[in-house]
Formats: sequence, C-alpha cells, structure tokens
Amino acid sequence: MSRIELSLNPSPRAVAIADRVESFVRDVVVPYERDPRRDHHGAPLDELVYEMREHARAAGVLTPHILADGSHMTQRETALVLIKSGLSPLGPLACNTMAPDEGNMYLLGHKATEEQKDHFLKPLVEGRARSAFFMTEPSDDNGAGSDPSMMLTTCRQDGNHWVINGRKTFITGADGASVGIVMAKAEDGGACMFLVDLPDPAIRIDDVPNTIDSSMPGSHATVTIDNLRVPASQMLGEPGDGFKYAQVRLSPARLSHCMRWLGCCIRAHEIASDYACRRMAFGKALIEHEGVGFMLAENLIDIKQAELMIDWCAGVLDTGSLGTTESSMAKVAVSEALMRIADRCVQVMGGTGVTDKTIVEQVFREVRAFRIYDGPTEVHKWSLAKKVRRDWREAQA
Amino acid sequence: MSRIELSLNPSPRAVAIADRVESFVRDVVVPYERDPRRDHHGAPLDELVYEMREHARAAGVLTPHILADGSHMTQRETALVLIKSGLSPLGPLACNTMAPDEGNMYLLGHKATEEQKDHFLKPLVEGRARSAFFMTEPSDDNGAGSDPSMMLTTCRQDGNHWVINGRKTFITGADGASVGIVMAKAEDGGACMFLVDLPDPAIRIDDVPNTIDSSMPGSHATVTIDNLRVPASQMLGEPGDGFKYAQVRLSPARLSHCMRWLGCCIRAHEIASDYACRRMAFGKALIEHEGVGFMLAENLIDIKQAELMIDWCAGVLDTGSLGTTESSMAKVAVSEALMRIADRCVQVMGGTGVTDKTIVEQVFREVRAFRIYDGPTEVHKWSLAKKVRRDWREAQA
Amino acid sequence: MSRIELSLNPSPRAVAIADRVESFVRDVVVPYERDPRRDHHGAPLDELVYEMREHARAAGVLTPHILADGSHMTQRETALVLIKSGLSPLGPLACNTMAPDEGNMYLLGHKATEEQKDHFLKPLVEGRARSAFFMTEPSDDNGAGSDPSMMLTTCRQDGNHWVINGRKTFITGADGASVGIVMAKAEDGGACMFLVDLPDPAIRIDDVPNTIDSSMPGSHATVTIDNLRVPASQMLGEPGDGFKYAQVRLSPARLSHCMRWLGCCIRAHEIASDYACRRMAFGKALIEHEGVGFMLAENLIDIKQAELMIDWCAGVLDTGSLGTTESSMAKVAVSEALMRIADRCVQVMGGTGVTDKTIVEQVFREVRAFRIYDGPTEVHKWSLAKKVRRDWREAQA
Amino acid sequence: MSRIELSLNPSPRAVAIADRVESFVRDVVVPYERDPRRDHHGAPLDELVYEMREHARAAGVLTPHILADGSHMTQRETALVLIKSGLSPLGPLACNTMAPDEGNMYLLGHKATEEQKDHFLKPLVEGRARSAFFMTEPSDDNGAGSDPSMMLTTCRQDGNHWVINGRKTFITGADGASVGIVMAKAEDGGACMFLVDLPDPAIRIDDVPNTIDSSMPGSHATVTIDNLRVPASQMLGEPGDGFKYAQVRLSPARLSHCMRWLGCCIRAHEIASDYACRRMAFGKALIEHEGVGFMLAENLIDIKQAELMIDWCAGVLDTGSLGTTESSMAKVAVSEALMRIADRCVQVMGGTGVTDKTIVEQVFREVRAFRIYDGPTEVHKWSLAKKVRRDWREAQA
Repeated sequence: MSRIELSLNPSPRAVAIADRVESFVRDVVVPYERDPRRDHHGAPLDELVYEMREHARAAGVLTPHILADGSHMTQRETALVLIKSGLSPLGPLACNTMAPDEGNMYLLGHKATEEQKDHFLKPLVEGRARSAFFMTEPSDDNGAGSDPSMMLTTCRQDGNHWVINGRKTFITGADGASVGIVMAKAEDGGACMFLVDLPDPAIRIDDVPNTIDSSMPGSHATVTIDNLRVPASQMLGEPGDGFKYAQVRLSPARLSHCMRWLGCCIRAHEIASDYACRRMAFGKALIEHEGVGFMLAENLIDIKQAELMIDWCAGVLDTGSLGTTESSMAKVAVSEALMRIADRCVQVMGGTGVTDKTIVEQVFREVRAFRIYDGPTEVHKWSLAKKVRRDWREAQA
Repeated sequence: MSRIELSLNPSPRAVAIADRVESFVRDVVVPYERDPRRDHHGAPLDELVYEMREHARAAGVLTPHILADGSHMTQRETALVLIKSGLSPLGPLACNTMAPDEGNMYLLGHKATEEQKDHFLKPLVEGRARSAFFMTEPSDDNGAGSDPSMMLTTCRQDGNHWVINGRKTFITGADGASVGIVMAKAEDGGACMFLVDLPDPAIRIDDVPNTIDSSMPGSHATVTIDNLRVPASQMLGEPGDGFKYAQVRLSPARLSHCMRWLGCCIRAHEIASDYACRRMAFGKALIEHEGVGFMLAENLIDIKQAELMIDWCAGVLDTGSLGTTESSMAKVAVSEALMRIADRCVQVMGGTGVTDKTIVEQVFREVRAFRIYDGPTEVHKWSLAKKVRRDWREAQA
Repeated sequence: MSRIELSLNPSPRAVAIADRVESFVRDVVVPYERDPRRDHHGAPLDELVYEMREHARAAGVLTPHILADGSHMTQRETALVLIKSGLSPLGPLACNTMAPDEGNMYLLGHKATEEQKDHFLKPLVEGRARSAFFMTEPSDDNGAGSDPSMMLTTCRQDGNHWVINGRKTFITGADGASVGIVMAKAEDGGACMFLVDLPDPAIRIDDVPNTIDSSMPGSHATVTIDNLRVPASQMLGEPGDGFKYAQVRLSPARLSHCMRWLGCCIRAHEIASDYACRRMAFGKALIEHEGVGFMLAENLIDIKQAELMIDWCAGVLDTGSLGTTESSMAKVAVSEALMRIADRCVQVMGGTGVTDKTIVEQVFREVRAFRIYDGPTEVHKWSLAKKVRRDWREAQA
Repeated sequence: MSRIELSLNPSPRAVAIADRVESFVRDVVVPYERDPRRDHHGAPLDELVYEMREHARAAGVLTPHILADGSHMTQRETALVLIKSGLSPLGPLACNTMAPDEGNMYLLGHKATEEQKDHFLKPLVEGRARSAFFMTEPSDDNGAGSDPSMMLTTCRQDGNHWVINGRKTFITGADGASVGIVMAKAEDGGACMFLVDLPDPAIRIDDVPNTIDSSMPGSHATVTIDNLRVPASQMLGEPGDGFKYAQVRLSPARLSHCMRWLGCCIRAHEIASDYACRRMAFGKALIEHEGVGFMLAENLIDIKQAELMIDWCAGVLDTGSLGTTESSMAKVAVSEALMRIADRCVQVMGGTGVTDKTIVEQVFREVRAFRIYDGPTEVHKWSLAKKVRRDWREAQA
C-alpha cells in the first residue's frame, strides 16, 4: 500500500513526534480496528481506549501535542501530529488527541487556575479520564442549536455556590466522562463556565441516541441539569466571560477535527487506491478505468487542499488571532472536501466499500456527521457573507 | 406535515391501489419504524416483517402490484404503487414489494413453469417466504463484481441433476430465505439459472458483513456453494439462457429500487420540511433562511425529476423493450438525485439529522448503498458511453 | 453524425410539423450558421433573418406553432416543435419561434382586441416584424431587476391618452423592433400594458451593451421613455391588470426558452459526440477514454431530464394552470442542466470547443445568459422555498 | 470597494514589488479596460499594449519578475507579483508578465546561449516584442492535441541548417510576434526546438479563429510551416532534448496562468461583492440574501484555496523539481476553482454580469478557455491517476 506524503513541515520537533505517532497508529492501533469491544451505538468502549493508551504511553506518543511542561505545541505543529494520529479512527483515542478532550485540555490549559488544572486537567493530560463540554441545547426547546445567543440554561449564585438548571444535547462523551465543562447564562445575561466532577446525580442522562457516526466513546447524550450546585471556585475564569472562553476553544477545536478527519480520509484513500490497483474489472485494473482513476486523482487534489487550508488556518491561530473567519473557511472547505474524498473511496470500492471490512465505510459516516458538528456548513457561510459585507462597509468609510 | 403530490397518473386502477398503499404505509407502517425488533446488523427481523404483512393482507395491500390472476401491473402502474409503498423504509417489506423478492417474483412470473410457480413463486406472492438471487461474486476471487462475464461459479450436468460449485457475495436476504435463484456457468460457457429450496447445507453462509444500509432482512451474505445438487426440473428456462433471464429481471428490478427509494426520499423531504418550518434559528424559521430554503427547493426539483425519469423508463419497459439503456440512465439519474435529496435532508435537520430520531439518517445510509448496488454509477455511464459510440457508428454506415 | 431521438409524442399533428421543422433547420438553416451577416455585438442582422424566413415560408415551417386559425398549439405540442426549431441558434429566428416575439405573440393572441391583433399581431405572425417587451428596469436606479414590485416606470392618463415615463433595460430586440409592449405603473399603483409602434422618438435607445450571448437581433437595449403618449385604445386589456398579463406570458415564455435552448444543446451534444468518436488521443478514440465518454453519458441523462421536465411543465400549462411553481422548477432544472451539457461539449472538444468553428462555443455563451434571464436560478429557488412554507402552513390549518 | 488580502509572503523584496504592481494595475491599467483599441477578435491591439508598457516602465513595474541581472525571482515570489499583475485582464500585458511571453522568457533565460539571449530574449524582457511557442498541432490532422507523442511536424538537417515542415494550431500570439520557438521531430524521433525571427514567409498564418477568450494579442493562430530554414545556431540547446525543454517551461508556464487568472478572479469577486452590497432586491441588500451571500462566501474559500495551491506548487518548483505532478494538481484545482468563482460573480450580478460593463463577463470567458489550455482538466487527472498507480507499484516492490 502506498502512503500519501504531506508537505507540512512546521518544525523538526513536530516532524519527529509526528513520525512516531504515525508508526504507532499504523503498527499498533490499526490492528485494534477489528477489536469487537464497542457499545451498542458502535462506539469504542473505554476499556478498549485505555488498553490502547497503555501502548501509547509506552511508545511515548500519549497526548503528544502537549509538551512536558504543560505547554501546547503551536497549532501548525499540532496539525501535523493530529493528522497522523487520525490515520485510524481509533488513533486519536489511543493517542489522547480526540475531541472533546483535546479542546477541553486546550481550554483548561489556557484559562484554568493551578488548583483547577491539578484537579481537572491533570487526569485528562495523563489519559486517565474523559471529559465533556456542555454547551449545545436541544432544538425542540428552541434552545441554542447553532445559535449560541439562544442559550436557555441558567446559573444563579446562591451563597458560595452557583446553581445550574437547563437541558443540553449532543454532549459528546458525557456518558462516562469524569470532567465536565458546563456553560450557562447568569441573571445579568452574561455567560459563565463551570468545571464539574462527573457523574453527578444533578446531571441526568436522558437519552443517548444512535447516530450515524461511531467513533466517540459515550456518543452524544442529551442531559437534564437539575439544580446542579457548583462551588464558586469551580467557575472557569470570570463570570460573564463564558462566550469569550468558548471562542478561545472554538477555532482550535474546530480545526483539530479537520486535522483528525483528514488523517482518516488519507487512510481511506490509501485503502481505496490499493483496492483499485489490485482488483480487475472488464479486463484491466480498476484504476486503469478513468472513471475510477479520476476519482483517485481528485482525492489527491482534495487531500492536498485540505492539508494546505489546515496549515494556513493554524498559522493564523499561531499569530494569536482568534481566527474566527479563517477557521470558518477551513471548516467548510475541509469538511466538504473530506466528504467528497470519503464518498469517492466508498464508490471506488463498490460493494466492499459499503461494508465494515475496511474503515472506509465508517469514515464516510463520520465525515457526514462532521459536516454538521462545530457549525454546519451553512452557518459558516452565513458568517463569511457577513464578513464580506462588514469589510465592504469599512472600505466605504 | 405537508405531503408531496406526484404527477404520475398511469391508470385509475393504479391510482386507487396506490392511494390505499399510501394510507396503509402512513397510518400502519410508520409507527413500526420505532419497533426495536432488528438483528445485530440493524435489519428488521422476519417476525416484524410477517406481523406487518398480516396488517397489509387485512388492508388489501399485500403484493399490490401483482393482480389476482397472477399477472403484473404495467411498469408505469407499478411505479406509482411502489413509490407509495416506499414512504417508509419498512413499507416495501410490509407490502411485499421489496427487493429482491419483487424482482424474483417478476422473473418467476415470466419464466417459470407452472410446477415451478406452484412450488417457488406462490409462497412469495402470498408474502409467506423470502427469496434470494445468487449472482454477484466476490472481488477477492477476481469474480464477477460488476462484470458478469467474469462469473466463476460452475454447473455441470450429472445424470438428472446439475452440480453447482462457487462463491457468491452480497446475496441480499440469503440468510433466512426459503427460495433461491442461483446463476452458474456451464462447461460450454453458457449461463444457467436454478431454483433451489433453502436452506440447503450445500449453500454455506460464510459471512454476513455489517453494511451501511439496514433495511433488508438477512442483510447481504457471502456464501460458498459446495457441490449443490439440483434436479434438472429446477432449472429455470433453458440452459445457456441465464444471462438472457438476468436481463429480463435486470431493468425492472433496477427501476423498482428507484421507485421505493424515491418514496423514502419524499418522506425524508417531508420530515425535513416540517423541521425547517417549525424550528427557529437566528430570529426566524429555518426555512426562511435561503441557505435552508434553497435546499428544500432543490429537493422539489430533484424529486420531480426522479419521478419523471422513473415514469419514462417504466413506459419504455411497458413497450416490451429490455430498456437496458433507459434503465441505466434512470438508475444513475435517480440514485444520484436521491443521494442529493437525502444529504440535504440530513443537513437541514442539523444535529437531529444524524440521529435515528427520524428515518432521515437511515434513508441517507440506504441511498448511499443504492448508488452501488444494481450497478455503480460508473458502470452505467460506461455502458451509456458505449451506446453513444455504437449509435455514431451505425449513423456512419 | 448520430441524432438524439426525443421521447415526446404529444400528437400526430405536432410530430408531423416537428419533423418538417427539424429537416428545415438541419438542411437549410445550419448552413447559414457560417453566414457573416452579424452586427457588431455578433447578433444576426435582420437582413439575414428575413432571408431565412423566406425559405421557412416556402417550406411551410414559418411560425409553425400557431395554426391557420390563429390559435396556438398546446404547450406540449409547442415543446416538440420549438425544441426542433432550436437545433440551430438561427433556427428559431428562421422559423419565427424566437423570444421575445414568440411570447409576445402568445400574449397578444390571448389578450389583444381584434383591432390590436390586426395592427400589432398580424405582422409578427407573418414573420415580417420584430417586437420587444419593455418590463425590466435598471439596477443602478434601484429599479425592478428581478423584483417587479420595484417598478419605477409610470403611466398617467391625460385625456384620451396615457403618458409614460421611465427607464427600461435588457430590452431584447428593442433596437429594430416594430412592435413594443410597455409596462408601467399607474398612479393608483396598478400596472398597465401598452402596445406601441416602434421606433418612436419618445423611446430613446441609450445603450446596447455587448453581452456574452449573441443570438438575438437587436441585442438587449437600455432605453429611456420620455413622455411617450399612447392612445387609450392601445392599452392591452384593463388598467391595473398589467401584472396579471405578465403572468399569462411569463410561464410559457420562460418554458419556450427551455425548449429552444434544449434544441441547441442537443445539437451541441451531437457535434461533441461526433468529435469524440472521430478524434484519436493517446492511442484510442477520445470517446473510449472514460473521462470523455462519461461526459457524453451524463449529457444523455441531462438531455432526457430536460426533455421530461419541459413536457411535464407544458402539460401543467395545458390544464389552464398559470404554472408558476412548475415553470420555476423547470426553468431552474433545465437551464442548469443545459449549462452542464454545454460545458461538457466545450470540454470534450478541447481547443476546438472554445473556437467558433462549431456552434458549441456560442451555445455555451447563450446558456450562460439563459441562467439569468427570465429569473435567475436563485429567484426561482426563493419562490419555491416560499411555496414549501406555504404548503406546510396550509397543511397545519 | 473592499480588497481581498492575500496571505502570501515569500520575501520582503517580492512584497515590495507586488505592492507597486498592484498600485499600478489598479490606478493606471484599470482605466484602460474601457479603451476601445481591440482587434476584431476582441483582443487588445499592440498599440494599446505598448502604450501601457510605457507607463509600466516609468512606474518601475515592467517585467517585474525578472531582476536587473537577468535572473528570475523564485516561483513563490513570482506568484505574488503575477497575481497582482492579473488584477486586470490588461495588467499582465502592461507589466509584461503575460503568456506566452512570460514562459518563453523563462525558457530562454534557462536554456538559450548568450548570443541567442541577446538576439531573442532581450527585446522580450524589455517589453518591445512579443513571442509565440509553436508546439500544439491540429486535431483534424490527428496531430498532437493534448498528446505530444503524436507530433507530426518534422525537422531535418540540411547542411548548416534545419528544414522544418508541419502545421501548428492554437499558437497564441503568432500573429504579430517577432520571436518564435518552434518544436519539431527529427528523423531519429527526438524533438528539437528552434528560435526563429518572425514574421517569416515560410510560416504562413492560415487562420485566426474567433475564440471565447479575448485577452491575448494575436489570438490563437493556426499556421503552416512550409520548408522553414533555420540556421543550426538557432537550435535551442541540444537536438533530441526538445521534450525536456518543453518540460522545463511547462510547469512554471502552467502555474503562471493560475497566478494571473487568480488575480482577475479576485478582482471579479471584488466587483461582484461591491454590487451585492450596494444593490437592493426584495427589500434588502442583495448580499443579505443568503443565496447571494453564500456565493460570495464560497468565493472567499475558493480564492484562498487557489492561492494556497499556487504557493505550494511554486515552493515545489523552487526546490528544483520539475513539479509535473504538483503543477497538474494545481492546474486542475485552480482552474476549476476560478471557473466557479467567475461563474458566481456573473450570477451575483444578474443581467449586469453578462454585459461588458464590468470585466466579470470577460473573466468568465477567459477562465472557460483556461480550463482547456495547458492541458484540459481530464488530461491532468489521467496523469495523476497514473501516478497513483506508479506509487502503488513502487510500494509493492
């Protein structure tokens, strides 16, 4: 099987780590893809996750994007490492570079107090716990959906505690998480974030629906928060700054999805290319049929473009910019490109492509979901159109 | 919820039956969509299927496209009825209009002897049995795949019997079927078809893979046929005519998939439209956002075009033509249109669209598989291109 | 060269006329495609048009869709005839089935008084004059554009006359027309339509811009109407009914564009197919390259779908319906399909495709413009989305 | 009007020059866009070109990508400068960065002897002459087209001269050029390149067809070469190395088209954005309609991706690689992206978009042609598919 070479070269340090991650994922994680330990949604069981992490720890590739001193690699370095960790759908779980933990660690690394880091961040970085980010609200309540201004969950101060009430949905990994970050609106309309030990009886898991994707332990729960009491010391940062912190987490988390799923699509492309080169149809190798070969050619181009968009957006984030526009552009471009790639891989492989004999079928399903989470394509285009208008107005002034 | 009206009007008889089928599916079958009786591939259990068929029998909509005298409706009539039966993914199972039974009944109705009909066809028409069509071969053997000329399964005469050996794959419904139609190549290179009672120890189910779709009982098995002995009286038609009979079944079966899945996509569109009309985002109903409303507008167009292509192709078949070119055109156009429709429905519904809270998520997965079975898009384009060339040559002559 | 066969068969009468039209266009009109008589916008000179019409008259194919008694063929009959007349970009001019005359004749045939018909309609039907429809207004005035409610042109009654003032743009054929239909808003906000002899000094042609298309004599003028006085007897129908009459003309006129340009695209496809079958590249005929053959296969499908949409929409109009929704659906589907067809034809022919050595290059340019006139794609999708919402609301009630 | 900012930052030197070029093009060249001096194909007359070059010389932006010592900027530097020169379709002519001169100067700069440079290259660099590259052959002869191995033009040695015979087509700028580079096949099958003073009676211009594009002086001629005698000293490099030299020119020339047309599409996007922000429809600014705003959002993404692909490919060329694969990827990705951008700009501007009131209409036509020249999309995909297969084979070994 021939491997896709990336052009990314952010630093010797990152290249060295990324190489180790790639070897680990290809040699150690890939065989786990056939491991049957999954829950009834198809998501990997924690038992499987923690077993793989033992190997990652031994191989020196656990949480590879966070350095020994607790600082994070640059985003451009992270890109290279996370793409490589994504070469298997299990790779990010094995290496502890998976959402939502990766984004949560990023946020806590930047905004938590030392005490909060000790208690909430340390077990995450060590790969011994999972976390969840409680922001999205159910659409049947006319709650937030893709529109955060519609947040209905409330928090009110009661002595030295805050009391939180509301409903949250699509809370990835809530079922089984030890660490929660909960967002709520205070009486003055400002948003607050709280760190919570999980499970907590005041956060009731109402439903964990079956979804088209199946890579995330705990799947995507809907929960009711019913008079959850949190000590004031567990507020993250300052009251009223919740949306600001969500922004800090937003672009890097969005971009890290692009990285991991690009890795998966690269692998799917390798599998489909291998299939097309081996399998004969109508008297010649499948790939010699232009109808098939052109799809693989288009994959090469889409992979490269996804890689370049990620690297560019990561570079913008590395300047200290929030990168809201840039990460919207990258999210749309990359998620749509990955959908095309995954779809072509399925098509190239014909009947085999729709079975779970390879990861191609799963990658297709995962990427379909990715086009919706962290903002559906349409929401990003909407905010990009607003930016075009804003720039025009400023140029008029 | 607003319903899509079709323009099809092939005959008063068909309209009346289609109306009954529609009411039955919407009122009786749709509630079964939440019935948990599924196998571990997600496919409906036979128990569930036969329970629904009792209702269909009572409602006079069981096997509605085959008339009391055993004759079939015209293809244009069938189209209207099968689209309506498809308004739920369970509808064709409940009404006994599902693949592969529908195509197998068609073939037996046209080519079987009276004795064969009595034994093999009757229980199918009465909705008391399932069947399977053993044609496709595994690609890892470099077997037939999409290319029937590569068939490796053999049959040789031995006294008053035929002995069949080979491997078959993607045999929908083989697991649990009572009736099999097996295709094999004789020593002289001619293809033969045989009718077989199932299960038979000489047909060993090696594997039933998980696949992206989950609507077909028995899923898609890979089997080994090991010295299967079949009495000569169970050969369908004449030796050497196997490919010809496959052709007879081919276009109608291909087209009937288009019909059923169009039904499903119409329903998915109704669900997505309802969602978009109810749900608010950024201060107005989702559908008032052009980004959403345009997707639903595009669905209207794609639905209409799918309907017209099906009706046109059905009309060609009704003239007695094999309709190979026309059914290739229809299959490509309809399956690709349905993919766009299903994809838009998922996207319109955002997070809800990727859960199994509605059938939209399943329809998306089913249609993805449909783009491959009964000939992937690329194989049909290939044969259409050949036709362009053939026509050109004839015009030169 | 191989010809595309249509499935349309609306009536023996129409088939017979369409056959005559097809022979005429292929045999007599096609050679005129190399005739150099064009204006500096590339549009055919009237001299050329009237010469071709002499041949059409002789061949009995002049204004073939209007019967001897002045009545019009049904829309389904018209479809077949107009598609055939469109097999050359010059065909509709030669046969007098071209926009805007065809739509104007339709409107006058349905709404004009006998006196008005005698004076304004007769020379049009006889192919001795051209006409123009003055509705669209310039966007730099923030006039009507695609939004008729923004109409700024006014008419006010002055004794037995009306006085009209305003500016109009993209008035196809105004330069050189003998008959004008002018739309304006009365003081009470109602819209009126007037018939006008042209040229008239009160209608000043300000500008005839170069445009990407070049099939319409007189091109698309911007005019100023400066105190144009029209006798009250030249009002079409009743005051205030202008928008209603525009609706009468709207759907058939929109659909007739689909018909003519489908004809052109069929011819472009025949040319490209012929090229691909003759020309060798990399050791085989171009069409044997799937990259090329698939494009021609996709053309076959798009042509069929365009044909079916036109026939369906025409059938709706033939029931007496205004067909606003249906003609929006048809216009979007057909114009976008024709763009894909024309684009593929250019691409298949490589360098030759971008020269004027064949009509393919012109057809590509014409179809690009067609995606905008008679309502850009986006305006139609917008009104289709409104319809989805309206239907939903009615179903709620 | 708001300007698109690029992310490219190859060197301070290039940024400074690019800024000067941008100011020059926007301030001095853009007003020339309405200058009527065009030939009957719509291409700018040399008189107009040379007048603009006087201004460019004065502004220090003539041939800005070639340094005072005759060396070329790096490709990444060139990219930034050429994109800026492309902000007007006339910009590359004014700045002397236009095809085919730019590619010809590149080839001569790398492969010509000092004597050849003095005679043939110097006037080009000084912007006093135009050149042409005689490679492509007519398809009606079954000549080279996109397939160079089919070259039919011959050269044979005759004493101290070579004698060349053949036909060439799509020879951009041949009409009016002073310098020609002619490719031909020697008797031993090796390809040779020759430098020729033009015009020469032995190179007869048979035809200069009208084409869809109109930016290149001299358009695209078909010529007959009839016993052209060239002194051996005018051979470029070594006999038999013609294809090798064509390769040297190929990737940079292909990429420089991407650069210039990206510049044009950026400008078209600025014009369309400005239009959409100013113009009202249905009660709000056009851009506030998502149907329009989303198109501009998609443009932002496509522009960024085109920019990144160009920069990446330029970087590969700067390592000394031939960049055949990379420039194929870039050519496909960029030309297809630019087509989408140009098409959206036309659509956003409605009726105005299809007139020559802005450059948008021309840009659309130019980009259509660009998808064919320097290798149609399909030829590049074909060679990319071959590379996938080659890589796979090597990985097997």
